[in-house]
Amino acid sequence: MYDLIPLGKRAKEAARILATASTSQKNKALLCVADALVSQMDGILTANRQDLDAGREAGLRPSLLDRLSLSEDRIRGMAEGVRKVAALPDPVGQQLEGKTLENGLKMTKIRVPMGVIGIIYEARPNVTSDAAALCIKAGNAVILRGGKEAFHSNLAICRVMRDAFQQAGLPQDCVQLIEDTSRETATAFMRLNGYLDVLIPRGGGGLIRSVVENATVPVIETGVGNCHVYVEHTADLHMATDIIFNAKTSRPSVCNAIETVLVDREIASQALPMIYEKLKEKSVEVRGCPETLQILPDAVPASEEDWGTEYLDYILSVKVVDGIDEAIDHITQYGSGHSECIVTSNYFAAQTFTDHVDAAAVYVNASTRFTDGEQLGMGAEIGISTQKLHARGPMGLPELTTCKFIIQGCGQIR
Amino acid sequence: MYDLIPLGKRAKEAARILATASTSQKNKALLCVADALVSQMDGILTANRQDLDAGREAGLRPSLLDRLSLSEDRIRGMAEGVRKVAALPDPVGQQLEGKTLENGLKMTKIRVPMGVIGIIYEARPNVTSDAAALCIKAGNAVILRGGKEAFHSNLAICRVMRDAFQQAGLPQDCVQLIEDTSRETATAFMRLNGYLDVLIPRGGGGLIRSVVENATVPVIETGVGNCHVYVEHTADLHMATDIIFNAKTSRPSVCNAIETVLVDREIASQALPMIYEKLKEKSVEVRGCPETLQILPDAVPASEEDWGTEYLDYILSVKVVDGIDEAIDHITQYGSGHSECIVTSNYFAAQTFTDHVDAAAVYVNASTRFTDGEQLGMGAEIGISTQKLHARGPMGLPELTTCKFIIQGCGQIR
Repeated sequence: MYDLIPLGKRAKEAARILATASTSQKNKALLCVADALVSQMDGILTANRQDLDAGREAGLRPSLLDRLSLSEDRIRGMAEGVRKVAALPDPVGQQLEGKTLENGLKMTKIRVPMGVIGIIYEARPNVTSDAAALCIKAGNAVILRGGKEAFHSNLAICRVMRDAFQQAGLPQDCVQLIEDTSRETATAFMRLNGYLDVLIPRGGGGLIRSVVENATVPVIETGVGNCHVYVEHTADLHMATDIIFNAKTSRPSVCNAIETVLVDREIASQALPMIYEKLKEKSVEVRGCPETLQILPDAVPASEEDWGTEYLDYILSVKVVDGIDEAIDHITQYGSGHSECIVTSNYFAAQTFTDHVDAAAVYVNASTRFTDGEQLGMGAEIGISTQKLHARGPMGLPELTTCKFIIQGCGQIR
Repeated sequence: MYDLIPLGKRAKEAARILATASTSQKNKALLCVADALVSQMDGILTANRQDLDAGREAGLRPSLLDRLSLSEDRIRGMAEGVRKVAALPDPVGQQLEGKTLENGLKMTKIRVPMGVIGIIYEARPNVTSDAAALCIKAGNAVILRGGKEAFHSNLAICRVMRDAFQQAGLPQDCVQLIEDTSRETATAFMRLNGYLDVLIPRGGGGLIRSVVENATVPVIETGVGNCHVYVEHTADLHMATDIIFNAKTSRPSVCNAIETVLVDREIASQALPMIYEKLKEKSVEVRGCPETLQILPDAVPASEEDWGTEYLDYILSVKVVDGIDEAIDHITQYGSGHSECIVTSNYFAAQTFTDHVDAAAVYVNASTRFTDGEQLGMGAEIGISTQKLHARGPMGLPELTTCKFIIQGCGQIR
């Protein structure tokens, strides 16, 4: 069996050095990585073709092959992503709190790196450089475990990064790839206590459930988004239609796209045909509750299962509700705590919704598609946390750090 | 088998109400709890006598019986603890960040309650009211699972609290006690995903390991402290002696007490006899490395196991080191990341130690015993986190909350 302990030990050693590396050292190394990704593009593309050939042979779906596929442009994009991370402010060393206690002790609470971060991800090879760059900028060593479909691409990208780090005077082992894509090794990775300070899964619901179920190291759950738009009866219906159209169709495969629309009964017969017409432009399948079907006879009947489903596709479930209380109850029952939106003109309705809906991002009159680190001005993100511990919503560099109390005295005892 | 789902559901319902309860409502309820603990003291003491009788019959150690035991004074202390929590500032609703984005979206990041917090703890019945008060002040419902030795005491305290909440207009189910102390139910509690937003174990190393190993809900690890004092060769030896004496003997059973002293070779023959003499006042057993034994022939030889042991007792291991690098390496290898101290007069030694030692609290010239929420001016604490995710060091009210992004627009789409 593949032994993860040596990787863990090397990562810890690298993390000790990275923890006190200066911002300019880390930036220099990241720029070196960006340059190397471009200058060594050919090797990466060759490795990628190997994965693509194997993928075609294994009968992978075209959408999966597309995610897997790299091109000159995509590699330039990856390099650009790494440069953007180098340009972000360094969170390490930031003073979060500071005071002098009554006994004269000087206490400061500062941001420090986590240590070693594990990332477990699926078919997109660009995650290899994106995630590693963020972890390293925040002073952490990273151990990557990518999907087997992208193995050769990941390995090639990882080698380029490791060489670039060494060239820039940082340890190669800042980034390590687990060179075994078996399920057993993935499970062992999730239980690498003593070496991993946090494990972040990036991928679909199945991967995330497996990590939550099996991990004994601390985990940040990311990504599942069963998001809603609630059209309250005072809503501007044109605005509601535009928001729903944008939130459903601008990129249905991502977690901040919506899956269900809730509409107040009072305006349902006016609002639903407008929304339905607009959604036809992108051939969205509407699955409705019985009342919706009375208004939109062409819609498909929704089953109980639909309310809990993240379609990630051109499908939308629609439910007529009695008012804001029923809308909030529905969201509480079925939502995944990612992004929720009310469209309303009523001050108190907006307040009730933002106060009572329990989600990472709660919107009034705007598309849920803004739940994204870049969009919210936080810079590149490593994922969107849907748990409440440590980080909630888009996670940028500060979310990849922890803190340390430094207490300076002159002999104080208790 | 005892079914935790109904408790989970009731807790979630209570949490929805608590999440938007005003500070004054919560404070009123907590003061009501404090009054009720005092006015219904007799019932609690009767229940406690039941536990003590059973404990004596089961042959519990005197120290355990002492922890279990309540008195009029101790109950008044518990009530006082609850009043102190009521007096702390409410973290809920605090704005953590706020800005207007280029597209006009107004984004604010605010503190909100976690939801439902689980606490799993051992023999001290005072944890029942202490932990519940903190959770509720931060707007969370709490589910408690105490040790079987304290079952009747916990149940009586919990009933008093539930009645007081109801009287004050908050749901009884803000606090629930799991009325089954079997191991199976404890494990099921650790896997109550969908109901528990976080689980905090409070107790010894065995309990914490069991939670880390078995839990599938997010966990905050607390409490194991293998702490060190390093006497650097420029240290004021009187100061070093006082700090070591205080950190070892003022309360050896707590996690911020030290277990090992590291001394620079250069000053060992002068420092060790001074430290040894002082420790004799409290009959501390010293377990030394071979060099220590040459200087202190009466000391006991330390085994490899000693360096990793949290004695929680009047025992101290002592090692002579070659200098600061060896000291930091030793701490990196054996420390639990809780509290570490250097005694020094050298500016650069102080900086090297605080930069390179990876622990929740790093001290220069002060006793590790200050790692405590009250001592650091954070108010009452629910525990001391030794993990890096979410919270590190003493955890007060803010650490029992999460955040939510509220994004207000006027029709923005992406």
